[in-house]
Amino acid sequence: MTASAPLHDVRALVFDVFGTLVDWRSSVAREVRQILGPRVPDPEAFADDWRDQYQPAMEAVRSGTLPFCKLDVLHRHNLDRVLADRGLHDVDETTRRELNGAWHRLDAWPDVAPALLRLRERFRIAPCSNGNISLMVDLARRNGFPWDAIVGAELARDYKPKPVVYLHAAQAFDCEPAQTVMVAAHSSDLAAAAACGLRTAFIARPDEHGPGRGETRAAGPVDVSATDLLDLARQLGA
Amino acid sequence: MTASAPLHDVRALVFDVFGTLVDWRSSVAREVRQILGPRVPDPEAFADDWRDQYQPAMEAVRSGTLPFCKLDVLHRHNLDRVLADRGLHDVDETTRRELNGAWHRLDAWPDVAPALLRLRERFRIAPCSNGNISLMVDLARRNGFPWDAIVGAELARDYKPKPVVYLHAAQAFDCEPAQTVMVAAHSSDLAAAAACGLRTAFIARPDEHGPGRGETRAAGPVDVSATDLLDLARQLGA
Repeated sequence: MTASAPLHDVRALVFDVFGTLVDWRSSVAREVRQILGPRVPDPEAFADDWRDQYQPAMEAVRSGTLPFCKLDVLHRHNLDRVLADRGLHDVDETTRRELNGAWHRLDAWPDVAPALLRLRERFRIAPCSNGNISLMVDLARRNGFPWDAIVGAELARDYKPKPVVYLHAAQAFDCEPAQTVMVAAHSSDLAAAAACGLRTAFIARPDEHGPGRGETRAAGPVDVSATDLLDLARQLGA
Repeated sequence: MTASAPLHDVRALVFDVFGTLVDWRSSVAREVRQILGPRVPDPEAFADDWRDQYQPAMEAVRSGTLPFCKLDVLHRHNLDRVLADRGLHDVDETTRRELNGAWHRLDAWPDVAPALLRLRERFRIAPCSNGNISLMVDLARRNGFPWDAIVGAELARDYKPKPVVYLHAAQAFDCEPAQTVMVAAHSSDLAAAAACGLRTAFIARPDEHGPGRGETRAAGPVDVSATDLLDLARQLGA
C-alpha cells in the first residue's frame, strides 16, 4: 500500500454480484437453452424478461407488502410469470425447479476470482447482494470467490437499495460506513450506498445486458472508477 | 461416500466454535499474560472467570431484557466485571479494547483446519456460534477455516440455545433441519439442536477447561460421536 493509494482508510469491500461479478444474462440463457431447448427460441430475451421482474418483485418486500423471503422464492415466482407470458403452461414442477437453479450456476467475468484473491490480502471481502446465502455459496464454489463472510439481503432481511442492507454489511465487519466500500457496476446501487455513508467503487461492465448494453461509467460521483476488478485491485494498491 | 456412511442424507455441517474448534482457555490466558503481565498472576483463572460470565450475559438477550448485541459487546461488559472483581480499576480503555480482542485471536485445536478442508469436499460448512461475524472472520483467517458462510447468532439475532439460531442456520443452506448436523463438544448445545430436528455430532474436547476438564462423551443420544474432527471426517466418509 502506498500513502497515496485511494481509500487507504478502508477496511472492508462489499460487492454487488449479479452483473458486477457474474454474467447473469449469458449464464441464464445457457441454462434456458439446455433445459427448455427449442421451446424457447430466444433464450437471451427469456433471461431479460426474467430479470425484468426482479425489481418489481423485491419492491413488494421493500414496501412491506410481502414479508421478507429469499430471492430464490422471488425468482421462482417471476419464472412462473415469464413461462405463462410465453404460453409455456405445461412445464412441469421438476423442470421449473431446475430452471430456477440457473441463478446458482452463473459464471463469473474472468477478472473476478484472481482480483478477489488479491483484494483479500488487504481487505475483508464479502458479497452484498440481494441474492440469498445459499445462492451466494453456490456461486462462490463454482467460481472460486474467497469470501470472508456472506452479508447482504438475507442478513438484513430486506433488499437493496434499502439502507439497512448496506449498514448491516458494514456493521458485520465492525466498520463505520466510511471504512467500507460498495463495489458495483450499477450507479443506482452506488448512489444508495453513498447515501448511507459508504465509499463507492464503480466497475464497468459494458456487456452486462448484451454486447454494448451495460454501464461504462458511473452516472454520479464515486470514489473510484475501474475498468474491471483487476484494475480496482491495482488502483487500491492490492 | 459409502452407502453405509452415517448421515449420508446430510448436506450441511454447522459447528460450535468456542471449545469445539478453538482452545479459548489457553489462548485467552496467553493474551492476558501478554497484555496485563504480573498484574494477573493466574491468567488461566482469569480466562475461566471471564468465560463464567458468558451464559448470564447472553441470558439477558435471550430473555428479552437486553436487545440483541454482538458477543464482542457482551465480552467487553464481562471483562469490565472481571477486572473490577480483581480490583484492577485502573486498566485504561486502550488496554481493555486490546484485551477484548483476545477472543478474535484464539488458536484452533490442531485437527480442525485439515478436517474442515476434507469435510468441505462433501458438505456445506459454516460456524454456528454465538460469536459475531467479525469475530468468526478473524478466527477463520488466523486458523485457516474454509467456511462457505458464517451463520449463527448474528444472523438469527439471538443466542444459542434458542431454536431460531439452529433453524436459521439450516435455512441459510436451504436445508431441512434433518439435513443439517450440529457439531459440538457440548452436550447441551447438541440437545438444543436435536430438539429443533437437527442431527448431532459430538466431538470430545477433554481439555477444554484445562487438563482433563472437558466433555469426553455426550451426556445424551447423538447421531455420531468422534474423538476429534478428523475422526468425524473419517466416520462421515469425507
